[in-house]
Amino acid sequence: MSFKCDTPAVPTVEIDDDAARITRWDFEPGAATGWHTHGWPYFVIMLVDGVLKIHDGKTVTDVPLKAGQAYRRPSGVEHDVMNGSPHPIAFVEIEVKKPEMLK
Amino acid sequence: MSFKCDTPAVPTVEIDDDAARITRWDFEPGAATGWHTHGWPYFVIMLVDGVLKIHDGKTVTDVPLKAGQAYRRPSGVEHDVMNGSPHPIAFVEIEVKKPEMLK
Repeated sequence: MSFKCDTPAVPTVEIDDDAARITRWDFEPGAATGWHTHGWPYFVIMLVDGVLKIHDGKTVTDVPLKAGQAYRRPSGVEHDVMNGSPHPIAFVEIEVKKPEMLK
Repeated sequence: MSFKCDTPAVPTVEIDDDAARITRWDFEPGAATGWHTHGWPYFVIMLVDGVLKIHDGKTVTDVPLKAGQAYRRPSGVEHDVMNGSPHPIAFVEIEVKKPEMLK
């Protein structure tokens, strides 16, 4: 179901308040987050160019992204994310815990 | 009230849907956004190290930030933002238009 990988991606929580959790994720080449689900809707913002390998439980998709490129995903979708690039990558993940608090 | 500046920051809209608008902003040294207010709550995510000069109408504050560092601000606050670094900088701005759409 998830990537066979023994190099975990490294999370660094920057902000974790009532409204949102902001985490920087650093991945060595081949590193992966491990199988997980987000309990909150979230945004991902790439800090460098790279390829994300996204495993949805059945298929693996290579997603090439540029530094500064961002996307949004809903909560509740199981997946695993691996660095498919030959170099380290990093992205920032913004999980919106309480959207109603964003004023 | 705002910075005297004739080098505007350059916005590149990446995503603009019902829920959010995601814009990459590129600043040459000394470039500024110009006096503005956000109609929606928003996040800023730095793509490179740099100093943001924030003008709130009375005072100017130098805010040194690291690549990957992010912050959140409410809507409705007038300000101007200048690149106070000796090099070009860029950040990604995520404006949450309809928080209730984030599921």
